[in-house]
Amino acid sequence: MALFVQKYGGSSVADAECMRRVARRIRDTQKAGNRVVVVVSAMGDTTDDLIALAKQVNPYPDEREMDMLLATGEMASSAVLTMALQAQGVKAISVTGRQAGIHVDSTHLKAKIEQIDPERIKRHLAQGYVVVVAGFQGINRDNDVATLGRGGSDTTAVALAAALKADRCQVLKDVEGVFTANPRVVPGARKMDEITYDEMLELASSGAEVLQSRAVEFAKKYGVVLEVLSSFVVKPGTLVREEVEEMESVIIRGIAADKNQAKVTLRAVPDKPGVAAGIFKALAAANLNIDMIVQNMSEDGRTDLSFTLPADDLHKAQAVLEPIMKKAKAADVHFDTGIAKVSIVGVGMKSHSGVAFKMFDILAANKINIEMISTSEIKISVVIRAADADRAVRALHDTFGLSRKPKAKAAAKKAPAKKRG
Amino acid sequence: MALFVQKYGGSSVADAECMRRVARRIRDTQKAGNRVVVVVSAMGDTTDDLIALAKQVNPYPDEREMDMLLATGEMASSAVLTMALQAQGVKAISVTGRQAGIHVDSTHLKAKIEQIDPERIKRHLAQGYVVVVAGFQGINRDNDVATLGRGGSDTTAVALAAALKADRCQVLKDVEGVFTANPRVVPGARKMDEITYDEMLELASSGAEVLQSRAVEFAKKYGVVLEVLSSFVVKPGTLVREEVEEMESVIIRGIAADKNQAKVTLRAVPDKPGVAAGIFKALAAANLNIDMIVQNMSEDGRTDLSFTLPADDLHKAQAVLEPIMKKAKAADVHFDTGIAKVSIVGVGMKSHSGVAFKMFDILAANKINIEMISTSEIKISVVIRAADADRAVRALHDTFGLSRKPKAKAAAKKAPAKKRG
Repeated sequence: MALFVQKYGGSSVADAECMRRVARRIRDTQKAGNRVVVVVSAMGDTTDDLIALAKQVNPYPDEREMDMLLATGEMASSAVLTMALQAQGVKAISVTGRQAGIHVDSTHLKAKIEQIDPERIKRHLAQGYVVVVAGFQGINRDNDVATLGRGGSDTTAVALAAALKADRCQVLKDVEGVFTANPRVVPGARKMDEITYDEMLELASSGAEVLQSRAVEFAKKYGVVLEVLSSFVVKPGTLVREEVEEMESVIIRGIAADKNQAKVTLRAVPDKPGVAAGIFKALAAANLNIDMIVQNMSEDGRTDLSFTLPADDLHKAQAVLEPIMKKAKAADVHFDTGIAKVSIVGVGMKSHSGVAFKMFDILAANKINIEMISTSEIKISVVIRAADADRAVRALHDTFGLSRKPKAKAAAKKAPAKKRG
Repeated sequence: MALFVQKYGGSSVADAECMRRVARRIRDTQKAGNRVVVVVSAMGDTTDDLIALAKQVNPYPDEREMDMLLATGEMASSAVLTMALQAQGVKAISVTGRQAGIHVDSTHLKAKIEQIDPERIKRHLAQGYVVVVAGFQGINRDNDVATLGRGGSDTTAVALAAALKADRCQVLKDVEGVFTANPRVVPGARKMDEITYDEMLELASSGAEVLQSRAVEFAKKYGVVLEVLSSFVVKPGTLVREEVEEMESVIIRGIAADKNQAKVTLRAVPDKPGVAAGIFKALAAANLNIDMIVQNMSEDGRTDLSFTLPADDLHKAQAVLEPIMKKAKAADVHFDTGIAKVSIVGVGMKSHSGVAFKMFDILAANKINIEMISTSEIKISVVIRAADADRAVRALHDTFGLSRKPKAKAAAKKAPAKKRG
């Protein structure tokens, strides 16, 4: 008897009708001979509505209280989904993050899971229940509820799958899986059958919104086989798993664009040891997530320094940078929100050269100017004008031939294939 | 430094503006030199909305899951009110029923408080916090949340006041206190300055909706001084307290009418020992709350039996009675929803005779027919036609002179006054 952890997002449980549909899906999974643990997000826009309510009474709501407020969304949806399951004749019970034994650190609004004691879930599974867990939340050492941050329910699901040694963690969404590019931008975008953890991580951190990086990291760390699939249609989705050798035959797995980035340029910064370090130390201390960094050639002992960060963090960055710039006697700071980051990702890059060249060539042929470049072993990212982003993604998708389904290699050429997750 | 427990109902915290107003009220109470524990209900119609949502997915929702769902309403409002307090510069923290140490029995939807461990609240009070407690809920032995039933937040407040040995438990409402009669029916109805626990209990069980009987019972049991007052206007409300001798100078304290009663008449029931007992045993087993009972004189070994119960329970009573009536070969059952129960309440009745006679006389003078009568030491209730109820209340209020403020007696005549709560 296999054990499945299924995670349903907010749009899958937005109203009573959605709840009934999800309940039937879970019932069918159980009837097929599986034990099922369900992780559920808050219904529809509940979380956003609660945030808006909080801001009405307090423009800077306390993080502990915000967690107390937000966690109620998932508690409520877990109870309602359980009622819907019971209406389908399924023996079901809801549990909060606390009851699920999810212990987190003491950071509010973006708590990290420290430990899971899934005894209560195991007991209910042994009693024949479908266990419906309120996602996105855990309990900290102060005995307070804390939430895991945006997309936290994915992390709840993967962490529970790891703790319960589940056979698979299914993330059910309003998309059919992970696509080679955003189908709204690229009509020929194709659903992948499989993708490695590392590729998924690179895509997630490059603007693909299908899975949270943290959930994928967790899955990789504990070898949880993840599947992203449709909550509307019953058909296989995309498996996220350990790399197996045949996956390397694919050079580019997918393309992502992130338009929520901004570029900050510090002009005429003194080019002395420690100046750049001081700037990035201050930005890190303010919890700002700096992505790409470029430093120009020095002129007259001064240099320009550019970096990207999420556009939402711009005002925070500004507050950090102003005193530093004054102290460093830098000329000025320039903020640019008109950029996009376009990334191509694939484990096959490791064994193929010339991929970066091909990417730049395609962009040049389309008269798209590259402002910044960064690369990892399996990813190449460029910063371009936001207005060029969709065109760039379509051109790359087309020229790298991502619409075609990759063929499985007939014979392994290199090291023996790793065991499948 | 006095300790106040303040309870705010759903209509007092219905939206952000209400929350801000309540927060200012609490801030002022604290600034006046008091420690404050706040108990809060769910915002506005939240509880009804959640019940409606549950019924959409399951016409017969599981009680445990219903509790899980409903308890989120108070958790959310406690967090929002805490944020509103913080916006007013008040050091505040919210706690759930669980964190407040409220332990309940294992009945869902109408759990009873078994024990309170207020250690966490005491700790936060010592740290200078206003502690905002999610009302209406506790934690049972299965580690599950359970709710206390309608009006349960009043009970939470009184129980916490008892456990914390608070100086006063204030129930803040959209009325200014307890009135001698419903001001919507009797224009001359007067807000009382004080009322005894027993009188309040009788009024509460007679249709006055200002306080839940259970909360008053709790207050009486633990000697908690209760005050019902307006959440809108800052002025003294009505004190509910132990009887002190001068209170006995008031013969009739208040008048209540309950139009949500129904009368059931069983015709031609065999007048044999055990038959009536069997009927009421069956009704009690079905958790039906029977109020007044009248048995007519027997004729030909058969009798008519009438009783009243909440009109909402009629269909339940019907299901219980039908098989019994068949078995007892009773002629038929008659249901009458066109009745009202009108009650006059006052501890002074104990030492004054002729009150019942006066009541019947007033009703007769107004051509109002009495169908049933029941009395206790401090209450006389009559069942009349619902259409006559408002007229009856006005006539009684007028003739018993309830619009006039009672004078405190100059000298005690009987036993020495009990210590004031």
